Amino acid sequence: MDNIGDRSDVVIVGGVACGPKTGVTLVRRLPQAKITLFQRESMLSYGTCGMPYYAAGEIQSFDELTITPYGVPRSADFFKRTKGFDVFTDAEVTSVNRAQKTVTVRMLTNGETFEHGYDKLVLATGAIPNDAPFEVASTDRVRPFTRPDDAIRFRKLVEKGKVGRVVIVGGGFIGCELVEAAAGLWGLETVLIEKEDQVLPLLLDPEMARMAETEMKRQSVQVHTSTAVQKIDEDDSGTVLVHLDDGRTVETDYVALCLGVHPEVTLARQCDLKLGDTGCLEVDNHMRTSDPDIYAGGDCVESQHLVTGRKIFLPMGSLANRHGRVIAESIAGYETTFPGVVGACVMKLFDLNIGSVGLSETAAAEAGVEAQVVTGVFMDKPDYYPEAASMVLKMVYAVDDMRLLGLQAVGAGDICRRIDVFSMFLRHGATVSDLIDHEHGYAPPYAEALDPLHHLAAMAQAQARGTNFMTPGTPDEIASRFSTPSDIVWLDVRETEEATAAPWTVPDGHGKTMSISLNDLRDRLEELDRSANVVIICRRGPRSYQTALILAQAGFENVHFIGGGTTAVGKIAGY
Amino acid sequence: MDNIGDRSDVVIVGGVACGPKTGVTLVRRLPQAKITLFQRESMLSYGTCGMPYYAAGEIQSFDELTITPYGVPRSADFFKRTKGFDVFTDAEVTSVNRAQKTVTVRMLTNGETFEHGYDKLVLATGAIPNDAPFEVASTDRVRPFTRPDDAIRFRKLVEKGKVGRVVIVGGGFIGCELVEAAAGLWGLETVLIEKEDQVLPLLLDPEMARMAETEMKRQSVQVHTSTAVQKIDEDDSGTVLVHLDDGRTVETDYVALCLGVHPEVTLARQCDLKLGDTGCLEVDNHMRTSDPDIYAGGDCVESQHLVTGRKIFLPMGSLANRHGRVIAESIAGYETTFPGVVGACVMKLFDLNIGSVGLSETAAAEAGVEAQVVTGVFMDKPDYYPEAASMVLKMVYAVDDMRLLGLQAVGAGDICRRIDVFSMFLRHGATVSDLIDHEHGYAPPYAEALDPLHHLAAMAQAQARGTNFMTPGTPDEIASRFSTPSDIVWLDVRETEEATAAPWTVPDGHGKTMSISLNDLRDRLEELDRSANVVIICRRGPRSYQTALILAQAGFENVHFIGGGTTAVGKIAGY
Repeated sequence: MDNIGDRSDVVIVGGVACGPKTGVTLVRRLPQAKITLFQRESMLSYGTCGMPYYAAGEIQSFDELTITPYGVPRSADFFKRTKGFDVFTDAEVTSVNRAQKTVTVRMLTNGETFEHGYDKLVLATGAIPNDAPFEVASTDRVRPFTRPDDAIRFRKLVEKGKVGRVVIVGGGFIGCELVEAAAGLWGLETVLIEKEDQVLPLLLDPEMARMAETEMKRQSVQVHTSTAVQKIDEDDSGTVLVHLDDGRTVETDYVALCLGVHPEVTLARQCDLKLGDTGCLEVDNHMRTSDPDIYAGGDCVESQHLVTGRKIFLPMGSLANRHGRVIAESIAGYETTFPGVVGACVMKLFDLNIGSVGLSETAAAEAGVEAQVVTGVFMDKPDYYPEAASMVLKMVYAVDDMRLLGLQAVGAGDICRRIDVFSMFLRHGATVSDLIDHEHGYAPPYAEALDPLHHLAAMAQAQARGTNFMTPGTPDEIASRFSTPSDIVWLDVRETEEATAAPWTVPDGHGKTMSISLNDLRDRLEELDRSANVVIICRRGPRSYQTALILAQAGFENVHFIGGGTTAVGKIAGY
Repeated sequence: MDNIGDRSDVVIVGGVACGPKTGVTLVRRLPQAKITLFQRESMLSYGTCGMPYYAAGEIQSFDELTITPYGVPRSADFFKRTKGFDVFTDAEVTSVNRAQKTVTVRMLTNGETFEHGYDKLVLATGAIPNDAPFEVASTDRVRPFTRPDDAIRFRKLVEKGKVGRVVIVGGGFIGCELVEAAAGLWGLETVLIEKEDQVLPLLLDPEMARMAETEMKRQSVQVHTSTAVQKIDEDDSGTVLVHLDDGRTVETDYVALCLGVHPEVTLARQCDLKLGDTGCLEVDNHMRTSDPDIYAGGDCVESQHLVTGRKIFLPMGSLANRHGRVIAESIAGYETTFPGVVGACVMKLFDLNIGSVGLSETAAAEAGVEAQVVTGVFMDKPDYYPEAASMVLKMVYAVDDMRLLGLQAVGAGDICRRIDVFSMFLRHGATVSDLIDHEHGYAPPYAEALDPLHHLAAMAQAQARGTNFMTPGTPDEIASRFSTPSDIVWLDVRETEEATAAPWTVPDGHGKTMSISLNDLRDRLEELDRSANVVIICRRGPRSYQTALILAQAGFENVHFIGGGTTAVGKIAGY
């Protein structure tokens, strides 16, 4: 242990994302500083976010998640020789003595323990999986999915043909990614169990999440929402049994517990640093904890949400890297700050791209913000361009000042571009009219002349002037929003060929359908009852909007239409 | 002509993008207004920007550029029945009487002429092709490429097998798109002639444009830059002859003249509206001309560049659509304004995506802004992710206040996302440190944990602290930047396998190469001459940056490295 020495200018605890990034940046800003990083695990700088893709077999070897693009492993030796600071693995920091400014380190390889002094300390201790709120048999076939070992073991079992059916408990971000790994790439019989009434509750509103559920079912995944696990045990033959609260039992070869994570703040508690209501370490905008000589970043700290002003727990590899830079520059004396977050998230689920930024409708309600929403279906390129793909976008904005609150996106189309741009708008506290002034890169292989964001902004303005966009849902759900559904006139303004190809089925006893194409509507207005509750149907929404304007000008008073049209309804209902 | 009537509340001249958009929006905002649109051509609302893709055969029928997504043609009847306003095609407005508030219309079908009164007039007269500055034979085989007829005729000739070789004169946006159409999709022998010393001079700096030229050559296109056409004539057999200023003559079956466009302001001149120095109609931020009852939008008006504050001519379909909305809302009494432009452009060229926003290095110099640049090669996804693709990004920023000025992007990777986000940053007058705070959507199928924009910002900050990023070029070009190139030490820090796979060739007499992998560098520093001019070589740039820091800390004084490494050099030099 001689080479460790007895003190460093900066000691970093944690070696995955924020820790190494802090070290690398510090060497650049303070070349003379002695920097030492202690990492409890034996692996360093593994791309945690790539684990589902390794598990899926898309990435051949786990090493690919830890090597540089030029093939050199990110080992302790690499950090010493290439990056210029000391890294020790299998080295657990067990306590911090803030008065003495020392940490106690235990080497997990031989149990040796020593003290190491610091001038500045950086805690990048990450997050750990939540405990299951039910009884779990002690077996290697029931595991969380947060560490390299979890991914490696899962893949080994699958490669050996020992997993026919897998149960994933928890339909959040990681759970859904793992569903794709299991069902899509290995072709395993896959069962997803989620206790909430929707998957991805932190990203999407219920009806948007339904598109994800529909896509999983289309890929033969069994999705059970509103279903809690009571107990997981094993039978005599070694089969794992997942007992559900509805009395059913699912037999399986493997269970992945994707029950979320919480900040690893054991050390922070031990040395009495201030924690926030989120349970995370509280930090200022220089990433400094309540002790000015101790900084913290990555999954163990809380973030300020720039839309609500509230503190939240948002464990994301991209934020951890950005924290690392801010910590290093703050230690080096720069006035660098971390600005807070708007919660930009994207994920791939089979043929769907899914994204979210800012507040969902649900989150806005929880935050007490009076919000309004618009939903539409858009192509990411002009319809005439061969590879055009669609996406459903839902925008949330504040009723009082038309401030943008959030965007959700689900579809095969290019959603990332819109999520990134919206993220920028949110950070600047922009309004709907700012959004309509967005200048996007336009050419047919990439976009339409007006971007979906322009259309969403225009829809929000139309809504503020009195147009009623209804949130899409199944026909039954839409009918149930009316006090007397039997009186609804479902006005289908599509062309005959479109209506034939995708007939609109009126739920039993929920009114009648009339088909009048938009082109004929002005001539046939007299066929419609001006006092009826009219729900307009088209394929994607724009014709319904046009129809609504025509009917409103003609004196109709109860005109509604479905944002995103039959396309959105179909994606939600699965047809 | 009875149905035309003798006056309207609003008369719109022009029926492609801005004109119809104005009409459609006006009906929504002012349902009672009588609106009449006159269009000189017989086609309406054709997607001009889709014409190269129609010419290429990617789009089956020209109708696809004019129909709605649900298959109804955007005819005069469509605008009347569906959108609710009057449209007349083949109707040329020949003069405007501002005192009487009338326009004179000539019906091109029968020559009939009449007056039509207006309360508000909208000029959306578009742009027309520049005349060739050389003599051109009068033949149907030498044509511009701006109108539907041009695209339709070209495609018909090609489909009949009558075009073996095509010459495209002008390597701007449209010229390059047409190169792809001709060479990529029809497999024609294609020759591009550009009088400037680079293609795409309005979008890219010379070395970035070289990647586009290299890509075209890789696709067997003959690219002649710095080459002017003297004359185009025909021989007796009907072969078209393109005579070049270097004495050569190119025989061809077809010539497309892509010499740019200029605003169509004949009517504006006739009625004495104020034109700007750009030759475009001058408009205020409500798109109002010097006559408060006359609005203008689309390709005939000038735009205020938000980075330079200057007026420019930027003919883009996306802007024309946005103008239309602003005009309609202004006429309807809303306080809607058009904010100006930052010049976001994207285009596809074979396997390259090309984009630009704000100022290039050249444009910054022309505008008198003291600018600095950084160039890097980035992957659009983590290297371990199967579909990761690279892109070269060049960022331009102001030396004095680190304000962002522009971004150029060339590569197979996802550039649109970065162009769009940068567009937003430019519009807000953001600085390099704002950019580093961008919150992007991160997941391995879409991005790395740190976005290329974060890296570019960090590079600019490093450069401000003294690190010298060199703009990539061929080895010869780089060597020529030194007063005594023979003394250069080219320090190749790549791994042996990388250097073997892509050897770095030192130009004759331009110094010597030393190969020391980054991992070994700290141990072998003594092998290097501290006083030498060291130019560091790596694959993409980050290792060179790390090497530069190590050398600087070791007291080396003349350390340089190539932004984007051998990857950028290879893309420029074509190996």
